Amino acid sequence: MANKNWDQYHDYEGLDKLLTAQNLRSDKAGNPVHDEMLFIIFHQVYELWFKQILFELDDIQERFSSNVVDDRDMQPVLGYLNRIAKILHNLVSMMDILETMPPQAFVDFRQYLGTASGFQSWQFRLVEMRLGLRREDRVSVFHGEFDDELRAESKKTIKDAEKYPSLFDQIDGWLSRTPFIDNQDYKFWEEYRNAIHNILDERIKETQSLSGDALEKELKTIEKTRQKFSGIFDKEKHAEAQENGTWRMSLKALQAALFITVYSKEPILQGPNQLLKLITDIDSLLARWRYRHALMVQRMVGMGAGSGGSSGYDYLMRTVENHRIFSDLFALSNFLIPTQALPALPDEISQKMSYNYSSEEKAA
Amino acid sequence: MANKNWDQYHDYEGLDKLLTAQNLRSDKAGNPVHDEMLFIIFHQVYELWFKQILFELDDIQERFSSNVVDDRDMQPVLGYLNRIAKILHNLVSMMDILETMPPQAFVDFRQYLGTASGFQSWQFRLVEMRLGLRREDRVSVFHGEFDDELRAESKKTIKDAEKYPSLFDQIDGWLSRTPFIDNQDYKFWEEYRNAIHNILDERIKETQSLSGDALEKELKTIEKTRQKFSGIFDKEKHAEAQENGTWRMSLKALQAALFITVYSKEPILQGPNQLLKLITDIDSLLARWRYRHALMVQRMVGMGAGSGGSSGYDYLMRTVENHRIFSDLFALSNFLIPTQALPALPDEISQKMSYNYSSEEKAA
Amino acid sequence: MANKNWDQYHDYEGLDKLLTAQNLRSDKAGNPVHDEMLFIIFHQVYELWFKQILFELDDIQERFSSNVVDDRDMQPVLGYLNRIAKILHNLVSMMDILETMPPQAFVDFRQYLGTASGFQSWQFRLVEMRLGLRREDRVSVFHGEFDDELRAESKKTIKDAEKYPSLFDQIDGWLSRTPFIDNQDYKFWEEYRNAIHNILDERIKETQSLSGDALEKELKTIEKTRQKFSGIFDKEKHAEAQENGTWRMSLKALQAALFITVYSKEPILQGPNQLLKLITDIDSLLARWRYRHALMVQRMVGMGAGSGGSSGYDYLMRTVENHRIFSDLFALSNFLIPTQALPALPDEISQKMSYNYSSEEKAA
Amino acid sequence: MANKNWDQYHDYEGLDKLLTAQNLRSDKAGNPVHDEMLFIIFHQVYELWFKQILFELDDIQERFSSNVVDDRDMQPVLGYLNRIAKILHNLVSMMDILETMPPQAFVDFRQYLGTASGFQSWQFRLVEMRLGLRREDRVSVFHGEFDDELRAESKKTIKDAEKYPSLFDQIDGWLSRTPFIDNQDYKFWEEYRNAIHNILDERIKETQSLSGDALEKELKTIEKTRQKFSGIFDKEKHAEAQENGTWRMSLKALQAALFITVYSKEPILQGPNQLLKLITDIDSLLARWRYRHALMVQRMVGMGAGSGGSSGYDYLMRTVENHRIFSDLFALSNFLIPTQALPALPDEISQKMSYNYSSEEKAA
Repeated sequence: MANKNWDQYHDYEGLDKLLTAQNLRSDKAGNPVHDEMLFIIFHQVYELWFKQILFELDDIQERFSSNVVDDRDMQPVLGYLNRIAKILHNLVSMMDILETMPPQAFVDFRQYLGTASGFQSWQFRLVEMRLGLRREDRVSVFHGEFDDELRAESKKTIKDAEKYPSLFDQIDGWLSRTPFIDNQDYKFWEEYRNAIHNILDERIKETQSLSGDALEKELKTIEKTRQKFSGIFDKEKHAEAQENGTWRMSLKALQAALFITVYSKEPILQGPNQLLKLITDIDSLLARWRYRHALMVQRMVGMGAGSGGSSGYDYLMRTVENHRIFSDLFALSNFLIPTQALPALPDEISQKMSYNYSSEEKAA
Repeated sequence: MANKNWDQYHDYEGLDKLLTAQNLRSDKAGNPVHDEMLFIIFHQVYELWFKQILFELDDIQERFSSNVVDDRDMQPVLGYLNRIAKILHNLVSMMDILETMPPQAFVDFRQYLGTASGFQSWQFRLVEMRLGLRREDRVSVFHGEFDDELRAESKKTIKDAEKYPSLFDQIDGWLSRTPFIDNQDYKFWEEYRNAIHNILDERIKETQSLSGDALEKELKTIEKTRQKFSGIFDKEKHAEAQENGTWRMSLKALQAALFITVYSKEPILQGPNQLLKLITDIDSLLARWRYRHALMVQRMVGMGAGSGGSSGYDYLMRTVENHRIFSDLFALSNFLIPTQALPALPDEISQKMSYNYSSEEKAA
Repeated sequence: MANKNWDQYHDYEGLDKLLTAQNLRSDKAGNPVHDEMLFIIFHQVYELWFKQILFELDDIQERFSSNVVDDRDMQPVLGYLNRIAKILHNLVSMMDILETMPPQAFVDFRQYLGTASGFQSWQFRLVEMRLGLRREDRVSVFHGEFDDELRAESKKTIKDAEKYPSLFDQIDGWLSRTPFIDNQDYKFWEEYRNAIHNILDERIKETQSLSGDALEKELKTIEKTRQKFSGIFDKEKHAEAQENGTWRMSLKALQAALFITVYSKEPILQGPNQLLKLITDIDSLLARWRYRHALMVQRMVGMGAGSGGSSGYDYLMRTVENHRIFSDLFALSNFLIPTQALPALPDEISQKMSYNYSSEEKAA
Repeated sequence: MANKNWDQYHDYEGLDKLLTAQNLRSDKAGNPVHDEMLFIIFHQVYELWFKQILFELDDIQERFSSNVVDDRDMQPVLGYLNRIAKILHNLVSMMDILETMPPQAFVDFRQYLGTASGFQSWQFRLVEMRLGLRREDRVSVFHGEFDDELRAESKKTIKDAEKYPSLFDQIDGWLSRTPFIDNQDYKFWEEYRNAIHNILDERIKETQSLSGDALEKELKTIEKTRQKFSGIFDKEKHAEAQENGTWRMSLKALQAALFITVYSKEPILQGPNQLLKLITDIDSLLARWRYRHALMVQRMVGMGAGSGGSSGYDYLMRTVENHRIFSDLFALSNFLIPTQALPALPDEISQKMSYNYSSEEKAA
């Protein structure tokens, strides 16, 4: 009777499939190399987690696909993004396990592998794509396109997915639709610009005590700062920057992200602010994973100093920074100003961003 | 052409099996619960790592099965034990991922599970058994024996494995055979006992400055310490302690472990000393994993305060300390004495524990 | 000129004080033991982090001290609780560093210490107290009260802090004041009780297919479940349970915590739900830290198997579960029911928990 | 009485100094910013760990300073290197704590800081220098030399330390003195070269089945491999490579490192092999710390996309790979060959690398 439950665990977890999916090529070649088992299982664990990440993205992207994201959806969206972050965190530290394999052991079974390697996983390619890495932004693997070497089904899976908006596209769209920013009587953008001008004017006043080189230097710095800020105030400058790849996000999205960041305590912005933080966490964890992966490959196959020619290691190193997707959100910090200098929100706007309950209470 | 390599990765990693082994019961019941996927994949990752741990134990135990462990084997043995430690480390921190599942989500699909849970894994039972957890030392699960509820094959796998010595048995045997300890002219055990007597005699001399209660108290402490040490000097006392479960290891093994610990710098003891450290790391990581597992279950199903009756949580909590295997090695620290008080090794013994090369050089 | 900035870093970080605060007793005794430096610095890092935790608690508790917590305060409160969790996470994994110290090294300088040890820190006692560990709930250290051995200033600091409500008290109060639960026309508690009765009635209906022992067993289980739930429906039962220590929280607070958990997607409950999660994270991290600390002490001084008498290790082990503060929040999961069985919120209540903006939009 | 011990903990840990070394500039400026405390304490923890790392290096470098490293010293050397690795591991994950600080909070107190930042620590500069980062290999900070901005004492401390060999220099020297490699009858280097020629000759034989482009391509690859290996066989090629910065280590040291790696199971090589592994771990952890530091700075101050001009972030990014010290040891994996192709060690050599005890036993 009770037995039934245990049978259930074994069956439920698909252990018959799972525990028979490890086939060592070195075994088959009659020269069993102990560490090949670790190599296989390590990548299988990766693939299971990639499947989980894709499953979370399915749900998150479904919720972002409608024009208005339901306020109640913020909770599961934050929960699943946080889960993706925790999985990526584990993928980074999992490398500690693979690094117990001495390079000599790798050399011993490497001869029986094709070029199989963790970064050649179609699921990982799909994760990158779904998050927002565009085909044209990819570092080329050796001489072809990144999916030249994928088998037909995998290639198709990715191509099909490319027809739909990526998470980057969805977040850009969602940010762009943020209300509160551009009203009849209150234009966040003008207020923020004025605040910055006030700061800079203040600094110019303070230059009166300077003279000569010091004066000139400070004036130059102030002018440079003014120029910098114009990069997110000015439609044309932004369009240019988008053209040359400095910015990827739309101007509206960038401005909304800044609005959310600086007024993050307002009840309705607390969730979106957490969301932006989680997105930067995920971007940064992916980058750390890529860098750690490259270091591991360097340790195993020795590329870098003393060796010549392009290599898997070089490719991985080039992806570390080039495959980043949400750098725009990091760059935003460059446009923050001290809290004291922030323009106050008009009551009416602030009121809209509160809970019904609280405003009723205040009224009562 | 190039395609072949990529096909190889997909096939090599058994992805057709691996990525189709997730079947949500809530889906089947027509009430899909998103978080069930995480629950399944989380335990699948566990099972893959358990398979890896068993694979490492196969190799380690094979090397320990002969009467004399080859000196060259120390390197892979240390390497694989270290790998097991790193895997367990990851299993502990992986719990961060499962804890992104809210208890409400668990309640939602729990109704479709049997009693399936990570601690009901036959592979995990086997890992515990192989390390040295004896059937009779197990905390009973509810009212039966731990394997009552396992399916026939799994039950047999464990029974078959029980016929062979566990790692605990092998290490006990290997330690007991340590040379250098009991020689014609040098008996480590007598020297160590003398050293302790000297320390205690010194302390008795120092009591001359005391009187009254202070004197009495100090004399009592000294006597207690003398009694404590007799517990590893005296065969009969040790036999008694083994009887009542205070010690599990044989006297010879305990004494050898102490010898290895205090003279750990001698070349031939450096490896064995690392081995003992890794064994305590593994014991401690398993204990931490059990405790963290219990905390997670408490969070999910709420046992503890406010609930009645025995439960999975209670069972897990009782295993935390009761399923520890190598506590004897932790207890040894209780018998250490300061380095200055350690008896010097006779040159002849020390010489034997060096490398051939070094002694030749010294001779030259 | 530029120099000034660097001087600033050195001075800013107080390095003159910080880097001269390590005084090895073994050095002073003329018998320098290398590892004593690690022992000192390790605990200094602990003390710095404890100071940081207390600093965060100051801010959080200040915000909770007024009768109504400002909705805008939820953001920093969550942020600082999360910071405390991350610090505790680091304290747990920091133990990896101390475990590079062999027990023999500890024996070598231990003779020069008093009984100094990380758990004798007044700052840590204060953290426990501030979170909600009551004097009377503490496991006694050896034979006296926990602060018998503290110096006068530290004792006073703790006594003074005890006059103010702990975070536990504040959260209990804050939960008890949760609106929405007990209204004219909607009483959450009655709805929830009905939902449970419906579930149980359904199960009773299903027993019709059973007979004999199976029937009796199922009826018993159903009755037991009914009893269990009465523990949070019934004032008198709760009062009893509070008396005997099964529950610590007030009934109102428990009910509110359950309300927040099951309707956590409602905008106004998203923050409070995250807060409850963070509190359980902190409670669980503190427990893990205590357990890991006990394991480390066992490794260093060997208490447990083979040694007699009470000890620091035994004390630490007893604190692991006994010093937990927020177990009530874990126990709550015991009272959850599947989402489908949850009573729907009346529109009017749900409306109150939304943002002003959204309701306006819907109206428009 | 008992009190004395507790006073001792407070005094022993220097808490009077330690807990009064936090002075918030924002406080002093009358505009207290809560998160400045975290910023200060975070860097203080860094500095304490840097002090600990320097203390370990003192001991390790002292042991490496004599011409012959005592075999008994291998144990503490490995222990302390492992400790440094564990500390660096903690420094990497500590960043999780600082990332709980929102960029807005940083902007709020940044105005009161000079340019103070964790990477401007003289202790960290000293750690880098002591490990082997040469003055001339440093990426220039803005326009001056790295220590232009240090205060006089710190500058002097570093200059003084530069007079002594770095750990890199010591390890190069120690490797170069490895015995066993160049004997009358056995020259490792010739044997290894022959083994490689055999492999390549075998591959040439196998080309007989090829023709046309495939043949040409394979022949080219074989030739390229032959060229690659000549880079560590040939004195002149190595000298050239050292000149242009491809290799930093001496040829003798590189060859010895390879010898240790491929024959790592020999008793006398097990310790040295672990040492080389730990050195690569430390190098890789430092690199990961630098990269993570750069990501954190990018998040806080927003350099990168959308901003112009050189910056702290750019500087940090350039140090990530450029400040690596032991890349040569990673590059070595490039010169490994499968175990089956390894030349067997002559008995006489193998014998020298064993323990005295074992050879006696075998003789008996």
